[in-house]
Formats: sequence, C-alpha cells, structure tokens
Amino acid sequence: MPRLTEAERSELLPALDGWALVEGRDAIHKRFVFDDFNAAFGWMTRVALVAEAMNHHPEWSNTYNKVEVTLATHDAKGLTRRDIELAQRMDQMTTGTAKR
Amino acid sequence: MPRLTEAERSELLPALDGWALVEGRDAIHKRFVFDDFNAAFGWMTRVALVAEAMNHHPEWSNTYNKVEVTLATHDAKGLTRRDIELAQRMDQMTTGTAKR
Repeated sequence: MPRLTEAERSELLPALDGWALVEGRDAIHKRFVFDDFNAAFGWMTRVALVAEAMNHHPEWSNTYNKVEVTLATHDAKGLTRRDIELAQRMDQMTTGTAKR
Repeated sequence: MPRLTEAERSELLPALDGWALVEGRDAIHKRFVFDDFNAAFGWMTRVALVAEAMNHHPEWSNTYNKVEVTLATHDAKGLTRRDIELAQRMDQMTTGTAKR
C-alpha cells in the first residue's frame, strides 16, 4: 500500500469530515465526543470490528465520553488510502441507530 | 469518596501488580500488552462493562496490542479506593479464559 500522492492528498483530505493532519507526522487526527461512556465505547466496539476486519487499527484514547483518534499506516510510515477508508467508516458509524 | 490517606497508600499501592504513581499527578498508571488487537480490545470490552457498572471509568489509550491505563477519581481530584478496586479488577480480567 503506497503513501498518498500529493494529488490524492489534495483530493481526499479536504473531503474528510473534521479530520486534520497531525503536526510533525504523516497522520490524521479527529476528536469524537459522545453523550456518555456507553455511547463512546459502543462506537469504539463497532469501529474495532471493522478495524480488525480491515487489519488496519487506529491509535486511540478514551476518557469518559471522548475518543481521540490518530490514523496512519505503520507499514507505509504515513497516510494511505486505508486511513482514508477507516476515517470514513468511523464517521459513518457515529450515526447508526436501531430501526423502528 | 475521600482521597486515600497516607496510611492507605502505604498499604494499598505496593500491593498492586505493576501499577505506578503518575509523575506530577495523583493517579496510577499501567501498561498492558496482549498478543494482538483482538486480545487487547476483548479485554477493554470486559473492563468497559465493569467500569460502567462501577460508574468509574479509566483514561486509556490503545495501539494494536497495547493498552495504557491511567486511573484517578475526578470528583476527588486524586486516588480513592475506587481506583484501587478498578485496578484490581483490570488485573483479574487479563486472565479469564473459556471453561473446558
């Protein structure tokens, strides 16, 4: 998996919702805030299942209702399309609710 | 929930397995290392259920097979017996396996 080209960065990174480049490192970061720990850890569990299936794992920290996420591809020593995909999946999974 | 007294600290903290005081803060820290992400996040999920039931939540970060945990009681602005209890429960939960 090659690192993102400059053209890919210009196209893909601005299209992400709220993700920012990390200072001094080729990685992206976002802070997610939930109603409470139950909501935060429930989301982390959904993400964990996807991350494991992708074999692409986040660096993340949790304090009560907040989750700080950093994404990078260790083998590539920087950002790849897998980080973009996981970022998008993480965003999508903030909105799922039970069907009525 | 009052902060631990000096006598309690002398008794309880050395009895913990691998937990150390955090520099510059009345909190304890431990790094847990697992075989892989599946094992690390499986353990986090077990801990999350206990933490939620205790209404006492860790500050923790995960990168692949590693989990860094810091415990303190925010309302008390420092260590209380609840942190000792959660630390002990976390240690216990590293060893559970399926029955044969």
